[in-house]
Amino acid sequence: MTCLADLLLHAPEPETALAKRSDAERLTAVRAAVVGVSGYAGGELARLLLRHPRLLQTAPIFFGRSVSEHAGSPTNRRECLEDLHPQLAEGSRHEVLPFCWDDLESFGTELIFFATPHEQSRERVPEALARGYRVIDLSGAWRLHDPENQEPYRFPDRGAEAANAVQEQAVYGCPELDHDGSIEGAKLVANPGCYATSILLALAPLLRAGAVDLTQEIICDAKSGVSGAGKAPTAKTHFMHAADNLSAYAVFQHRHTGELLEQLGLQRQQIRFTPHLLPIPRGILSSIYLRLQPGCDEQMIEGLFNRFYAGRPLVRVRPAGTLPQILDVAHTSRCDLGFALEAGGRRLLVVSCLDNLLKGAAGQAVQNMNRMLGWPEAEGLR
Amino acid sequence: MTCLADLLLHAPEPETALAKRSDAERLTAVRAAVVGVSGYAGGELARLLLRHPRLLQTAPIFFGRSVSEHAGSPTNRRECLEDLHPQLAEGSRHEVLPFCWDDLESFGTELIFFATPHEQSRERVPEALARGYRVIDLSGAWRLHDPENQEPYRFPDRGAEAANAVQEQAVYGCPELDHDGSIEGAKLVANPGCYATSILLALAPLLRAGAVDLTQEIICDAKSGVSGAGKAPTAKTHFMHAADNLSAYAVFQHRHTGELLEQLGLQRQQIRFTPHLLPIPRGILSSIYLRLQPGCDEQMIEGLFNRFYAGRPLVRVRPAGTLPQILDVAHTSRCDLGFALEAGGRRLLVVSCLDNLLKGAAGQAVQNMNRMLGWPEAEGLR
Amino acid sequence: MTCLADLLLHAPEPETALAKRSDAERLTAVRAAVVGVSGYAGGELARLLLRHPRLLQTAPIFFGRSVSEHAGSPTNRRECLEDLHPQLAEGSRHEVLPFCWDDLESFGTELIFFATPHEQSRERVPEALARGYRVIDLSGAWRLHDPENQEPYRFPDRGAEAANAVQEQAVYGCPELDHDGSIEGAKLVANPGCYATSILLALAPLLRAGAVDLTQEIICDAKSGVSGAGKAPTAKTHFMHAADNLSAYAVFQHRHTGELLEQLGLQRQQIRFTPHLLPIPRGILSSIYLRLQPGCDEQMIEGLFNRFYAGRPLVRVRPAGTLPQILDVAHTSRCDLGFALEAGGRRLLVVSCLDNLLKGAAGQAVQNMNRMLGWPEAEGLR
Amino acid sequence: MTCLADLLLHAPEPETALAKRSDAERLTAVRAAVVGVSGYAGGELARLLLRHPRLLQTAPIFFGRSVSEHAGSPTNRRECLEDLHPQLAEGSRHEVLPFCWDDLESFGTELIFFATPHEQSRERVPEALARGYRVIDLSGAWRLHDPENQEPYRFPDRGAEAANAVQEQAVYGCPELDHDGSIEGAKLVANPGCYATSILLALAPLLRAGAVDLTQEIICDAKSGVSGAGKAPTAKTHFMHAADNLSAYAVFQHRHTGELLEQLGLQRQQIRFTPHLLPIPRGILSSIYLRLQPGCDEQMIEGLFNRFYAGRPLVRVRPAGTLPQILDVAHTSRCDLGFALEAGGRRLLVVSCLDNLLKGAAGQAVQNMNRMLGWPEAEGLR
Repeated sequence: MTCLADLLLHAPEPETALAKRSDAERLTAVRAAVVGVSGYAGGELARLLLRHPRLLQTAPIFFGRSVSEHAGSPTNRRECLEDLHPQLAEGSRHEVLPFCWDDLESFGTELIFFATPHEQSRERVPEALARGYRVIDLSGAWRLHDPENQEPYRFPDRGAEAANAVQEQAVYGCPELDHDGSIEGAKLVANPGCYATSILLALAPLLRAGAVDLTQEIICDAKSGVSGAGKAPTAKTHFMHAADNLSAYAVFQHRHTGELLEQLGLQRQQIRFTPHLLPIPRGILSSIYLRLQPGCDEQMIEGLFNRFYAGRPLVRVRPAGTLPQILDVAHTSRCDLGFALEAGGRRLLVVSCLDNLLKGAAGQAVQNMNRMLGWPEAEGLR
Repeated sequence: MTCLADLLLHAPEPETALAKRSDAERLTAVRAAVVGVSGYAGGELARLLLRHPRLLQTAPIFFGRSVSEHAGSPTNRRECLEDLHPQLAEGSRHEVLPFCWDDLESFGTELIFFATPHEQSRERVPEALARGYRVIDLSGAWRLHDPENQEPYRFPDRGAEAANAVQEQAVYGCPELDHDGSIEGAKLVANPGCYATSILLALAPLLRAGAVDLTQEIICDAKSGVSGAGKAPTAKTHFMHAADNLSAYAVFQHRHTGELLEQLGLQRQQIRFTPHLLPIPRGILSSIYLRLQPGCDEQMIEGLFNRFYAGRPLVRVRPAGTLPQILDVAHTSRCDLGFALEAGGRRLLVVSCLDNLLKGAAGQAVQNMNRMLGWPEAEGLR
Repeated sequence: MTCLADLLLHAPEPETALAKRSDAERLTAVRAAVVGVSGYAGGELARLLLRHPRLLQTAPIFFGRSVSEHAGSPTNRRECLEDLHPQLAEGSRHEVLPFCWDDLESFGTELIFFATPHEQSRERVPEALARGYRVIDLSGAWRLHDPENQEPYRFPDRGAEAANAVQEQAVYGCPELDHDGSIEGAKLVANPGCYATSILLALAPLLRAGAVDLTQEIICDAKSGVSGAGKAPTAKTHFMHAADNLSAYAVFQHRHTGELLEQLGLQRQQIRFTPHLLPIPRGILSSIYLRLQPGCDEQMIEGLFNRFYAGRPLVRVRPAGTLPQILDVAHTSRCDLGFALEAGGRRLLVVSCLDNLLKGAAGQAVQNMNRMLGWPEAEGLR
Repeated sequence: MTCLADLLLHAPEPETALAKRSDAERLTAVRAAVVGVSGYAGGELARLLLRHPRLLQTAPIFFGRSVSEHAGSPTNRRECLEDLHPQLAEGSRHEVLPFCWDDLESFGTELIFFATPHEQSRERVPEALARGYRVIDLSGAWRLHDPENQEPYRFPDRGAEAANAVQEQAVYGCPELDHDGSIEGAKLVANPGCYATSILLALAPLLRAGAVDLTQEIICDAKSGVSGAGKAPTAKTHFMHAADNLSAYAVFQHRHTGELLEQLGLQRQQIRFTPHLLPIPRGILSSIYLRLQPGCDEQMIEGLFNRFYAGRPLVRVRPAGTLPQILDVAHTSRCDLGFALEAGGRRLLVVSCLDNLLKGAAGQAVQNMNRMLGWPEAEGLR
């Protein structure tokens, strides 16, 4: 019996709508769909796609998380994007459909963004790939390759074989760290975690340059606004608990830790990441403590960051001694990096700030789309 | 068949623990219980009672909302006040018991505070009175006498007769408006609503003096912090919805409207009250707009308020032109009142501020206890 | 002696850069400058203009408030937009020049936005007009025609004659209320106040239709985020004062009152407006209380609003019974309107929400530019 | 010439009001004064002293920072505590006098709290001691003995000799760490810094037990509410900057670092402390990262903390794995400590929370008073 995994590995490339486009067309448009548009990241993604200059003619399509129950009669359960995200209201209304492969096909979809919980992504993405769609998945479903790092997600056994096969093809989509063009050719891009993005962008230049003394543990003290905790009302997200408060959580256990280990090539003992819940709607600030190799000075570190991010429009390196703050990146798709080096010493603090819903989720997903399609990286993100 | 209602109306006064105390004893102590200590108001009440100077020797007892399932074995479900309200932790731990009449009796309880939802209060308070306890109820169960005003509460049919009989005895416990000592003798005090308190204290002096031109509608635009919306996590109390936001709700429908009509003797067309949800944890500010009768000036209004509240420690009248703000009353049991009168005109704005959990709930409940027991009104409230 | 006022009234139209453009050109571009870019509204205006599709080729120019001290050497005091408003950083840097007529001219400026304090606007705008520039002024300098309404601004005596002459030409720029096209031809548009905009848009449809019973005072209880209080650090804008607080201010005295009277044709006794300071960064919610004429019902009111704002992209009328909230309009240039009518009665609540920095300032200024230049009203505003 | 320093070192003990009290009297009362009552810490101190059970009869006296200009006529510049701190209003009004030695003496003052800037404390405290008063100073004036650690304060040269002599006598007043009773006999107690308190209480038990591997740097990532930044309105404390934001500051330079080095006996390279500004009014959370010596387990660490703080009412040790949060300590004088130890590892996170104005300032000052006078440590603090 042929299983989905085999199909995925050995099947000939399907003749997708995207493949059939001419190069010229591909430069100007794509038909994109968002599945899971009701959450915070899905809403931001819808906002970005609706105003993306290359998508003006082939308007994006929006799906909820749940499956259509009555394939023949979607009309009587119509919900609109503007009802789910009232800030997006701008005259025209955009229907949100229940998830349905037939609808995806009939709209001529070429690229699907999954903004669904990772359980749903593990189930649906393999089929999406088998049907020939390119996929950008915003969940944690495809970010990790090492089974130990996947463990906290408790992926379902059902469909595990197909999922594992798909995992092989998944490209970790942190565009600033992708120096060999993997994203361009990817069928499946795993959009990084919000915390992971903020820490990776701060550490990669230093680690790749061999500037970090790894006999000292790297400490990543990260703080995130409440949108990172999701839309479900819980005791923790109740205003009375979140406001005027600060708390650490998921100590030694946060799922994004695995992304740091895999992407930075570190051992578990070499880096520690502790998230905190901030009483603000959005934004992450990560304070990253490390010891440099001997012989580094401020100018070297500044040069190292500047060279690494030269020409990258969505990372801004602040001048030495200038530390970024959340206010400067909220509602932008940019990551701001700054550092302070102890005078005459080796102790370094790197501070990294981004908007968890944009550079930490929807903005980076659009950046990945731009890269996949050969468009300018920051198109539609400013 | 004799029903509970008859018993309540015709039974001889039970020989309660409180009745048996000598006058001298009554001046120094009472054994109080709080039922429903897990909510915000219940927690504040526990805090106030634990530090009330007259209750130091006869420590208060705390009950949750739910009934003991195994009357004989409460020990294995012990929860502590400090777990429910971590801010209250101060060394010693206070057990929270499941609600149980036997436990109430065995502890020698004399006075019960019910901080339960109104449905539970409607059910339990009649029995508490029948058992001889004095009761202060913080819910909306007993505040309203007119069935039309009760309607929004949808009181249960079950036990309605007993409840209606009890209603007759209920005294509306706004101590500053109780000029004939009803609270002192009351068996059952209905603690006023938080919004209602803020508006009643602002309007009563003016209306009783006949200073208001009632041909113009009185507009009460009230704003409350999120604790007023209760502890249950909902879409509305989610930080992402409540923060950086403001919204009006329950327009023309809020349950506290009935209290205004009954306590102020107004017709429904003469006053309008609109609540708004503020992005702060606690505090109410009510902006009250009215037209004065001809011939009033600033000095008269200031004098009128000052005379009305002379000697009342928990209402502070601000000098003419000084308007109160929430910051000044948060974490206090005081209501601040201020006003602005149009120069040479009859248009008056009264601003009233209080902490919805204290003067609007737990603080006023303790104030009522003080009045019932002949203690100084503000004892334990500063 | 010929004074500036005469010049303004009788001088031939100067051959401005704008006048010299062909119609076709005018449809595609304008060279705009912002004077006073350092404040909150100025920063938002810069953000909007930098991404406005019609200004991409003729990039806007930015000036601070202060005058260049050394006309010949502006270069050594260069400040950048991105330093003043770090959220705007996007790779390229935009210089902010000290205010200077020569620079304005050498850049080929056609339209000037003044986001300066009203004192500076009163002084500089007459000269800008004399020099042939078209002007949109965001301050209160030109909104009011009745000297009594101007009084709270204490306009300077110096240059009063020229200013008064200019006042005659000023068009009040609330595009949704401008039914005779005054904005299109205007040389000087006075951009409305943020509070005034929120109230005017709520009341104009009702008043123009004669639906309001004016024997009852109209009560406007408005609440604004802290950005409305300006960028200067004061005791009132200190986080410790503004956070977790609410306060009323400027009762019977707020400057925007005059705009309501003049634009709505009301007497001072017929409407009352009270502003409050909300503990949020941005957004205004106005709760407006009034009595309708007999015979109105919900459907009529909904129809009235819908007809009034049909085709207006920046006002959204919510269905009857749905009230807007600040969250839905923050970071947008839209005003949301909703209402609740008492069942079977004449008491109406209208709730109006907008972002005070956008529809209440910079967004409306861009909307006015679009109208002045014959572009679609919401161009660059979504 | 005899200088003040000599007087302080060699003068006979003055016959102060406090010394003249009998032991019995000393147990029941002291006459205390607060100098510098206008700031946040001063206000909280006033609140605590006004309700302190031992001070009910000898009411505390309040002074502002500035000196009386007209020694003979203080009456015509009377300001009241309730004007400076409206939350404290409770009927009676408490005058705030300009600072004046004569007034201090005529009121029979025995103990002075200085809540003044450190410059003023350096100047006035030596004289206060010379006049025989006992002093608790809340500023950073007397906390540090090592000149290198004092450096960031830039103490004035004027009076340096006297100040240095006084420095010798100063006792660092962290009551939980004072195991030899130094506070009891102290003439001058230096009240610790707010950040320092939160970190010292977390680290002292571990370091004194030799449980920390000091070859790894201890990282202290601390976050404080805005009240820590003082009452002066600045760009940094403006609501628009502080709200919805987070930022690190004073990296490698914060003044409290010296307290950590001196009190914990560490070298500068062994510990790093980075403060951040939180968008909340009050509270500090410190996340402290370290490596334990081999062979420690969770039970040992929990036992170590529990033994260290046994019987100390104002430190609460949370059970292993339970981390404290700011909400639980806000408006209390307690420090909450919790920790998480990596399973099977040596990596430890200690989280420490306190209210920066209470356990971090005014509450600890009262705790020090209680210790100086032999009263129960937490008297008046719950």
